[in-house]
Amino acid sequence: MATDVEASVAHVDAHKESIVASLSELVAIPSISTLAEHREDIERAAAWLQTHMQSIGLENAQTMQTGGNPVVYADWLHAGPDRPTVLVYGHYDVQPVDPLDEWDTSPFELTARDDYLYARGATDMKAQVVAVLAALAALGKHGGIPLNVKILVEGEEEIGSPHLGDFITANKDLLAADFSLNPDSGMTRADRPSIVYGLRGLAYFELWVHGPAQDLHSGVFGGAVHNPAQVLAELVAGMHDEHGRVTLPGFYDKVRRMSDEERSALAHSSLTDEQIRTMGGNPPALFGEEGFSASERIGARPTLEINGLLAGFTGQGAKTVLPARAMAKISMRLVPHQDPAEVETQLRAYLARRAPESVTWELTEMVHGPAVLVERDSPAVRAAHAALAATFGVEPYYRLEGGSIPVVSLFQDLLQMETVLMGFALPDDAMHAPNERVHAPTFFRGIEAHIRFLASAAHVKK
Amino acid sequence: MATDVEASVAHVDAHKESIVASLSELVAIPSISTLAEHREDIERAAAWLQTHMQSIGLENAQTMQTGGNPVVYADWLHAGPDRPTVLVYGHYDVQPVDPLDEWDTSPFELTARDDYLYARGATDMKAQVVAVLAALAALGKHGGIPLNVKILVEGEEEIGSPHLGDFITANKDLLAADFSLNPDSGMTRADRPSIVYGLRGLAYFELWVHGPAQDLHSGVFGGAVHNPAQVLAELVAGMHDEHGRVTLPGFYDKVRRMSDEERSALAHSSLTDEQIRTMGGNPPALFGEEGFSASERIGARPTLEINGLLAGFTGQGAKTVLPARAMAKISMRLVPHQDPAEVETQLRAYLARRAPESVTWELTEMVHGPAVLVERDSPAVRAAHAALAATFGVEPYYRLEGGSIPVVSLFQDLLQMETVLMGFALPDDAMHAPNERVHAPTFFRGIEAHIRFLASAAHVKK
Repeated sequence: MATDVEASVAHVDAHKESIVASLSELVAIPSISTLAEHREDIERAAAWLQTHMQSIGLENAQTMQTGGNPVVYADWLHAGPDRPTVLVYGHYDVQPVDPLDEWDTSPFELTARDDYLYARGATDMKAQVVAVLAALAALGKHGGIPLNVKILVEGEEEIGSPHLGDFITANKDLLAADFSLNPDSGMTRADRPSIVYGLRGLAYFELWVHGPAQDLHSGVFGGAVHNPAQVLAELVAGMHDEHGRVTLPGFYDKVRRMSDEERSALAHSSLTDEQIRTMGGNPPALFGEEGFSASERIGARPTLEINGLLAGFTGQGAKTVLPARAMAKISMRLVPHQDPAEVETQLRAYLARRAPESVTWELTEMVHGPAVLVERDSPAVRAAHAALAATFGVEPYYRLEGGSIPVVSLFQDLLQMETVLMGFALPDDAMHAPNERVHAPTFFRGIEAHIRFLASAAHVKK
Repeated sequence: MATDVEASVAHVDAHKESIVASLSELVAIPSISTLAEHREDIERAAAWLQTHMQSIGLENAQTMQTGGNPVVYADWLHAGPDRPTVLVYGHYDVQPVDPLDEWDTSPFELTARDDYLYARGATDMKAQVVAVLAALAALGKHGGIPLNVKILVEGEEEIGSPHLGDFITANKDLLAADFSLNPDSGMTRADRPSIVYGLRGLAYFELWVHGPAQDLHSGVFGGAVHNPAQVLAELVAGMHDEHGRVTLPGFYDKVRRMSDEERSALAHSSLTDEQIRTMGGNPPALFGEEGFSASERIGARPTLEINGLLAGFTGQGAKTVLPARAMAKISMRLVPHQDPAEVETQLRAYLARRAPESVTWELTEMVHGPAVLVERDSPAVRAAHAALAATFGVEPYYRLEGGSIPVVSLFQDLLQMETVLMGFALPDDAMHAPNERVHAPTFFRGIEAHIRFLASAAHVKK
């Protein structure tokens, strides 16, 4: 019996409630990878996925140990040797939920309001994983999945996938495929499908500035002992110049320049600055590197961000303390062809040059991964293009995304495999923030697009 | 029966254990004034003091309500109309104890190690209050207190004494006295008695920088939405220039200049830079306003300190958040003749000029009080000089202190009363910091000095 795409799409339409119920079960597990106290939840999320994969007819489902959080793997390899094999990637881990008091409803209880489903992981990326599995389930019921499928869902994406490279290296045969589908991605608007062809890399650091051995009374020592919080502020402030450029020595040396044609295409297809300002929580005005539009700053230019600051007394009221130390979490989004290791060297050189003798400093790298560009003109990408056009009724466009997905370069480097980045998160889904949500109509259209993509990709030449 | 000073001193020596027991009871009450959840502890500390004052023979002991935390008052007015009246000042509130994990023993359990007694409030200033009360108790047992005594112990010193001015105004007759003794002060070394003649003022602010309405994903919006933590760092960094001077417009306009004679006297009597570095938790080097010694920077020059920083993700690991807001606690130590209200205006002018349009900011004043100078050549100060010389066997010297004690200027302004600043905290007592302690031998010498001072001051002409 041949695969019936339209019947599969209708099947999803008829089973929306049970698909949402699955998502509801998965988001109820607080699988926060960066907090050690959630290790049991990580195991529970992996177990839930393994069971769910078995239940929809995938085979060989297993939870595989790594040096860190486990990977869940399953496959279905009965489409025949003339059909290609797709390796679907996902992650089941999520970001922390603080500040908790800014959530309108419990972050681990899927809550429907208007057209949205709210929960941590709703869009990044438990809904995206559930969507691909729903597409596979529907195809399985209506003539069978038309290509060979492998699926790998990891538990450390939100901490930079530190053990995934070793896992891939150790399991190259198991993971071998013709191309990869990665739905850890999104669109700029619900009515505007797109395919991502570039992702920024990441280099994330924790910087401590140490002064006196213990906190001091700011009246008794203030003015004579250099205040580590002040020094930290000065070091952080000096990392940008007045043109919004990063000052680390050599930071821009290897940055890929966009072609005029690429800039022009991006300018026509991307969000406007005003749209980005609105989606970005309505700050009074945008700000960034001079000479570039907001969408270029996000997609094509490297940045340096302060992700956290901590020093001294931060409670209510007034404590006149001169803090012994101060901390900043600092991350850079990198573009081709910056090297995360070189960026660390640049940051260390900056600190060595700028930090005064009155303090010591300590820098720890927490996460790193290079930027990637994927081939825009491949058979798999053309299949994605066709699927999106059929689902949304408009031609998709190609764009650069600001986030980082370490696995894309790992698949390139270790498996010589290109990735199709096709996901359905939206910019106002509050990823990594309070009140994360997924747009339910887009979630279901995403399932339809996955069905059409898998059917179309079944005819990609091996 | 005439007052027997030497018998009183011997009495203290014979009753050290019970004096330490009293201090132990008082520090066990976590009377932290800046945290609303400790309001009941504030009441308990006041009640303990009232009972203790009664038990040593003071009269009229009462807990008096204010617009905030209560004041404990007592007196003993039987020395005769030809004897002067001293108004002793103290405070029973303490600073918060965070970071709690840096305490070696529980902050509210007085713990003896080597020559020290450890606890929050051990030196600032529960021990100083207990010391004066022990001196009064000893004199009472050996011929009687030789002058009229009033004592006022407030519960809001650590938050800037916001209700003390109104309380004093409403109780001018009750508090009338010839001079005041304020032991909320210290010495620079255990073998080097001193009398403080100048205190810095304080202006304490909380600054918030607001950007987007909610936290954002730093990959999706980083580079286009101005990061409030970065803006805060830039604003804070700009508050000092490369010469260690504060850049707020007009900040130094009214600063009192030291005379050459005063600088020279301070240079001979004060701690050296190296001594201050050692006591100040051994930072790698000192740093401060160019052209001044460390003791001048602390005592005679105004400063701006960062007391706290908070933004974004501060837990373990990496969270790629672009924070919606960032906060700094910022305080200025002021010298004569700076005006705290003018300093607030200067800070607002600085922020208005420097903050970019891409954010909004919000500034709240939390505490303020002007700097004070007290008369060095008064009969009461001469009595203190004599008492310290007799107790320590060396001449005391006169010095400027960096901390702020709002009550000193309140007594000057509202009661036309000069204060003798004689206390026995030491620079390495870790005031306001973890492992606060009091040096037990200095604590007991302080009691002796108070006995000698009260006896000597009994003959100060009214």
